[in-house]
Amino acid sequence: MAIMHRDDELTQDHFNTMSLGENRYPTPLKLSAGFFRMGERVLYNNVIGPEGLVDSHVRSFERPGPAKLLHFDPSEVVIGIVTCGGLCPGLNDVIRSITYSGLDAYKVKKVYGFRNGFAGLTSGEDDVVELDHAMVHNIHEQGGTILGSSRGAQSVPKMVDCLQEWRVSILFVIGGDGTQRGSTKIAEEVARRSADIAVIGIPKTIDNDISFIQRSFGFDTAVEEARRAINAAHVEATCLKNGIGLVKLMGRDAGFIAAHATLASGNVNICLIPEEPFNLDRLFQRVEHRLRDKGHLVIVVAEGVGQELLNSDGYLSFDESGNPRLKDIGPFLKANIASYLDERKMPHAIKYIDPSYLIRSTPANGIDSSFCLQLGNYAVHTGMAGRTNCLVGYWNQHFCLVPISLALSRKQTVDVNSSMWRSVLEVTD
Amino acid sequence: MAIMHRDDELTQDHFNTMSLGENRYPTPLKLSAGFFRMGERVLYNNVIGPEGLVDSHVRSFERPGPAKLLHFDPSEVVIGIVTCGGLCPGLNDVIRSITYSGLDAYKVKKVYGFRNGFAGLTSGEDDVVELDHAMVHNIHEQGGTILGSSRGAQSVPKMVDCLQEWRVSILFVIGGDGTQRGSTKIAEEVARRSADIAVIGIPKTIDNDISFIQRSFGFDTAVEEARRAINAAHVEATCLKNGIGLVKLMGRDAGFIAAHATLASGNVNICLIPEEPFNLDRLFQRVEHRLRDKGHLVIVVAEGVGQELLNSDGYLSFDESGNPRLKDIGPFLKANIASYLDERKMPHAIKYIDPSYLIRSTPANGIDSSFCLQLGNYAVHTGMAGRTNCLVGYWNQHFCLVPISLALSRKQTVDVNSSMWRSVLEVTD
Amino acid sequence: MAIMHRDDELTQDHFNTMSLGENRYPTPLKLSAGFFRMGERVLYNNVIGPEGLVDSHVRSFERPGPAKLLHFDPSEVVIGIVTCGGLCPGLNDVIRSITYSGLDAYKVKKVYGFRNGFAGLTSGEDDVVELDHAMVHNIHEQGGTILGSSRGAQSVPKMVDCLQEWRVSILFVIGGDGTQRGSTKIAEEVARRSADIAVIGIPKTIDNDISFIQRSFGFDTAVEEARRAINAAHVEATCLKNGIGLVKLMGRDAGFIAAHATLASGNVNICLIPEEPFNLDRLFQRVEHRLRDKGHLVIVVAEGVGQELLNSDGYLSFDESGNPRLKDIGPFLKANIASYLDERKMPHAIKYIDPSYLIRSTPANGIDSSFCLQLGNYAVHTGMAGRTNCLVGYWNQHFCLVPISLALSRKQTVDVNSSMWRSVLEVTD
Amino acid sequence: MAIMHRDDELTQDHFNTMSLGENRYPTPLKLSAGFFRMGERVLYNNVIGPEGLVDSHVRSFERPGPAKLLHFDPSEVVIGIVTCGGLCPGLNDVIRSITYSGLDAYKVKKVYGFRNGFAGLTSGEDDVVELDHAMVHNIHEQGGTILGSSRGAQSVPKMVDCLQEWRVSILFVIGGDGTQRGSTKIAEEVARRSADIAVIGIPKTIDNDISFIQRSFGFDTAVEEARRAINAAHVEATCLKNGIGLVKLMGRDAGFIAAHATLASGNVNICLIPEEPFNLDRLFQRVEHRLRDKGHLVIVVAEGVGQELLNSDGYLSFDESGNPRLKDIGPFLKANIASYLDERKMPHAIKYIDPSYLIRSTPANGIDSSFCLQLGNYAVHTGMAGRTNCLVGYWNQHFCLVPISLALSRKQTVDVNSSMWRSVLEVTD
Repeated sequence: MAIMHRDDELTQDHFNTMSLGENRYPTPLKLSAGFFRMGERVLYNNVIGPEGLVDSHVRSFERPGPAKLLHFDPSEVVIGIVTCGGLCPGLNDVIRSITYSGLDAYKVKKVYGFRNGFAGLTSGEDDVVELDHAMVHNIHEQGGTILGSSRGAQSVPKMVDCLQEWRVSILFVIGGDGTQRGSTKIAEEVARRSADIAVIGIPKTIDNDISFIQRSFGFDTAVEEARRAINAAHVEATCLKNGIGLVKLMGRDAGFIAAHATLASGNVNICLIPEEPFNLDRLFQRVEHRLRDKGHLVIVVAEGVGQELLNSDGYLSFDESGNPRLKDIGPFLKANIASYLDERKMPHAIKYIDPSYLIRSTPANGIDSSFCLQLGNYAVHTGMAGRTNCLVGYWNQHFCLVPISLALSRKQTVDVNSSMWRSVLEVTD
Repeated sequence: MAIMHRDDELTQDHFNTMSLGENRYPTPLKLSAGFFRMGERVLYNNVIGPEGLVDSHVRSFERPGPAKLLHFDPSEVVIGIVTCGGLCPGLNDVIRSITYSGLDAYKVKKVYGFRNGFAGLTSGEDDVVELDHAMVHNIHEQGGTILGSSRGAQSVPKMVDCLQEWRVSILFVIGGDGTQRGSTKIAEEVARRSADIAVIGIPKTIDNDISFIQRSFGFDTAVEEARRAINAAHVEATCLKNGIGLVKLMGRDAGFIAAHATLASGNVNICLIPEEPFNLDRLFQRVEHRLRDKGHLVIVVAEGVGQELLNSDGYLSFDESGNPRLKDIGPFLKANIASYLDERKMPHAIKYIDPSYLIRSTPANGIDSSFCLQLGNYAVHTGMAGRTNCLVGYWNQHFCLVPISLALSRKQTVDVNSSMWRSVLEVTD
Repeated sequence: MAIMHRDDELTQDHFNTMSLGENRYPTPLKLSAGFFRMGERVLYNNVIGPEGLVDSHVRSFERPGPAKLLHFDPSEVVIGIVTCGGLCPGLNDVIRSITYSGLDAYKVKKVYGFRNGFAGLTSGEDDVVELDHAMVHNIHEQGGTILGSSRGAQSVPKMVDCLQEWRVSILFVIGGDGTQRGSTKIAEEVARRSADIAVIGIPKTIDNDISFIQRSFGFDTAVEEARRAINAAHVEATCLKNGIGLVKLMGRDAGFIAAHATLASGNVNICLIPEEPFNLDRLFQRVEHRLRDKGHLVIVVAEGVGQELLNSDGYLSFDESGNPRLKDIGPFLKANIASYLDERKMPHAIKYIDPSYLIRSTPANGIDSSFCLQLGNYAVHTGMAGRTNCLVGYWNQHFCLVPISLALSRKQTVDVNSSMWRSVLEVTD
Repeated sequence: MAIMHRDDELTQDHFNTMSLGENRYPTPLKLSAGFFRMGERVLYNNVIGPEGLVDSHVRSFERPGPAKLLHFDPSEVVIGIVTCGGLCPGLNDVIRSITYSGLDAYKVKKVYGFRNGFAGLTSGEDDVVELDHAMVHNIHEQGGTILGSSRGAQSVPKMVDCLQEWRVSILFVIGGDGTQRGSTKIAEEVARRSADIAVIGIPKTIDNDISFIQRSFGFDTAVEEARRAINAAHVEATCLKNGIGLVKLMGRDAGFIAAHATLASGNVNICLIPEEPFNLDRLFQRVEHRLRDKGHLVIVVAEGVGQELLNSDGYLSFDESGNPRLKDIGPFLKANIASYLDERKMPHAIKYIDPSYLIRSTPANGIDSSFCLQLGNYAVHTGMAGRTNCLVGYWNQHFCLVPISLALSRKQTVDVNSSMWRSVLEVTD
């Protein structure tokens, strides 16, 4: 799908951000002297080896901020916002922050929300809603997105038609990697038409699996809620003879939530993530050993674990109506662990919890809300400055701009040599 | 199973509590003058009709409290506690309250916990744990039960042997109706042996379905947690085109949690409980109508709904490993609603949440904790006074004693003519 | 202030509810056969003594419900709602429930909210807001009251002028005892003018101190929040040498919150309520004894404790700007305990927490929300049936109507001979 | 107090960590090939200017991790832990992590906790407690510190005597800047005696004000709890005419909590931090203007604000017993704003909330727990490797070692030119 670069193949070109063109409108923001220097950049690699600078290329991300000269005339700017894909804590915070920043700081003309994901960019005016203070004032206290969401691609020319029809200057696309692939296509079509529309992606990934984005909004909240589910599983497990609590968490390609919720809970005995090879027999042995030793255990499994096994072994699970369904690792593990223990005549009780919807629909917690608010502010600065086809990311403690092509060039996954993962192993072994 | 009495067939005899025999030991409690008058009773029926007293029988429950003369010599008393069946918020609170009340107020000799439900009364000393202040001090802040639990019957003679072996004077059995059936058998076997052992049941029913018990511990906490799940379903539903949130809640025979969580949430459009006849076609129509009207809806279903349908129509669902499984209404509804809408070419997205384990493993909330503490105190007063074969219940705002035979004579269910249910209908229609 | 009746001086007359007059409009509600029988009543006393019926008078409350014939023509009804006094969890739930019940069940013409308490009934149209579905849909998820509140009396004739000007048929007054004294005066002025306006009080008392109202909305939520503060005080106390956590809770005349939060927390060592005589020396001794024994303690004090002492001893505390202030028991205790321990050269650290605003501004928890919704429904039934000058209360497990004059005839306080208070003493001693 | 270096005066020498001496014991940890390279370092400055590398010195922190060769023989190691100063969410998590890492990963001989802060290092064996799995298993679910805490210095020689007496090899000191000043003195006395004891500081600062430590444990949890208090103030303010919610938050020198809680809440209108000059008249004008405009407002003030004013103007407030007290900005503001508005005949109601104890006694939230667990692991690696007189910090997304002298050389404060602060100004103006 994406061209995978090895880290040392990446050049500074991969990190450079695209601009729409000249900046000539003075910002309406009062910028104090020391505030922000255009052109600052954030180093990609801030670890140096014993032998000196590891990263000979000294690659860096552009650092966003309020420019003195803007690409767009604020009084003419129409902002569009669209939210795509699955829910994630903080969506409403970001919508609110963009709206406030646009209307209050830059005094833009209008802020429109397009409803129901990209579909709202092709479906006519019923799906366009003007956002103002009254409408967004309290929304950060609710989960979900007031704009609604959907999955799936739409006709790119139609979407750009829509942007032009509504005279959108800056489109903010809040969504995951699939969505941002769409953002890039929109930006390319915009370029093809020589239209003057900035396309700014806000990376939304509850799994934290978008590359070059160390922190994505909603993740901290998700860890907190995941911990609740794990602790419930722990209570159930400890109250039963050979009780097993099994919790499936989000994470198709990346086990960050599983890993951090394991660290947060302190009650997990086995944590399975997609980044580690999965071996069913070894799992059975660990389960049996732990039950014989302690009489109960808690397993956390990221949803992406064992997909190769589910496929290659021709395993089929069944959905709730009896139809074959592929690849749901949670019930698969529940059934197989039960069979294994039944064969060994070990009485047991497995309590399986799938808290995904409870996690993703939660309102953002405090620090996530704070992060979302800043993220929205940065996004608006970036759009007003005429950057396009990039994500507003966070790297080594600074907000930064990541070209969408770079972000999509690979998946971010848990480094199993990292000390974070080492801590997981220590706390679960 | 149980002899069902119509309400007007119940006589005062059904309400009278059994005693072990003479009370002759002065209580060590300092009882102030006005505190408690032995022999007070709580009216069963406290509503009178326009024509005057409805309840001509004037039946009443015994009101428990600290007796001046005890049946047992406190300094010789050994208390036993056992927790059976599924988890429920507040189990640890009750264990703690009984332990404190026994050790501190009555200065009893010992408090033992028998582990893993009734199994702990047949399995030897590894499953017996002495409870003291240090052990129970903080346990009310955790969900579950520190004693563990199990389901299923055990040999009654063996259990009474165990009680005699450990010289237990009062056995507190915390569990649901199945469990209390066991309590009665233990009490009967105790009587057969002319042993001097009180058996006091503490009704545990997260569904609130034990008769003659208006308030059971953990219920308020369960409603709170159920509301969380409903609100998550609501967020999911409102963020999707024709989004449907479907939440299955506890309630095999009684829809109290579903009803109160519906009232609490304010976001439920259809609430299905076992007490109302279930009609699939009517459900489909309500779903379709609501989607066409508003574009999203939330359904709450108690687990006991539609069992006759699932059986009589020969419907089989499949468990997670592909084996047939009977009677899980949640996935059944999910699948059938999806089929119905698919046939009508209505795009939709159903998000199904089963929060049961999260609900039952939660620690008790404040008011439940307060209730549990008092419940444990009353239970100890009741046992010390030599009552047996009864539950410590709550009726018309007072704690009361309910003979187990009375409590088991029928199930408590939601009165669909009650104003509570009327409120549910109003808020969901 | 109020005429205090001894319990046995109350006659049935005191319990009877006033009506506006004839009921002749058929209800628009579909009432199933078994639903509700007009004229049912709830016994005041449902405890009988050993010698038989204690309450020879058999006094009873009217039981509210949806009448078949209404006093008002629903299509002409204008509902008014006003919220007065301090905040309490659940205010918005009640406003929402009345609005929904009026508009949806009875299809009334209008629902108005008068803003800022009784002041909104005298201040002109800026303070009148029409309530509809969109406005109240989500309000139960926020604390406080969307109508705002205020304290203090207003001109009764002016308020009735206002009701007549806005053609209000039923006024719902949500407030405490001071407020309901105003409700009575409004009802009396209405009667004087022979106007056809029902005045229905909804008792709001976070302290639970309104008589003949066993359960008032927001109380359970308040206990939960109070427990949080107590547990914080406990953590602080246990982490310091001779650490003392001191928590002041609501309760001018009644210590219900202090008592139940003490039971809920399990971490309180001394619980002071206004109903018990307060002795400073005895408190000092208990504090010293506990510190020498365990090294830390937690004290909960209801705000009404020790007022006589603060006054009679001429003690003045100072407010935050140095002005004398009367009667804040929290800082008084903090200062005096500190002095006492200083004199005895006992090092110590007192952490004082006043969580009142945090408690009262919280949204209602699940079971409180469920209660508020039903309370609002009952209130509307009651008004439509033409009852007036009464509160919608809750007694012995049933909603009931309480004449305001009866409710105001005395304060409800903690019965220090009750087993609830006995449990507090056991758990704190 | 401390020598303040300007940033460009700091040389690499300031960043270098001290070691006790030779490392010769092989680690018992299984270290996979790619895991950790000794000698890696984290750049101090990872932002480069438009003109190229800003930080010509290329200063860097040592990066900690599990060394292949240890300074101490693990089987002989005795670990000591002490917690000092005020409470902070996560203390127990860190204690638990160090204990687990010591006992399980490194198989050290013993882990001792010294109770009640540094006092426990001088007060004899009653204050020494051996920590094992059973003791620390659940402690992360409680707030506070199981070891207790205290403030104030102790005799350094006596403390080192104590360490030697208990044969402590590594002392972990969890505390703020005052405490770490003590750690340095202990390390110096250890060096003077040529003893072989590592002193590792774990920076604890709920205010986030320790320099060169970008993230300190408990901060995220504190922001969440602070938000709760702000939202309560907001509810109170909006329900009253000219309602003012005033919340004092932690932050003597640094307004990080105030700033982030403001961003998190979205309901704050004025945020006052010590880093900004404080002008009372300007505050009055902002308050008056906002009240006239909107009728309510919320002010957040960090405790360190306006100290110069409180002192230089000779203003005295009074404590709860009427004695003069210096410098409590919360009541000062409450009183002065009230006077100002009274003079202008503006009716108003100020609700003042001081949630500090509620914030600091809370258990760590999920992501803080995860952070604490890793922090403890790193601390143990660092001690086993023989580093000393340093803190385990976090900088630019990596754990790092910070010489205590460097950390104490200045305070970390909010950069009022940062975009974070800019976001605060935008959201409050």
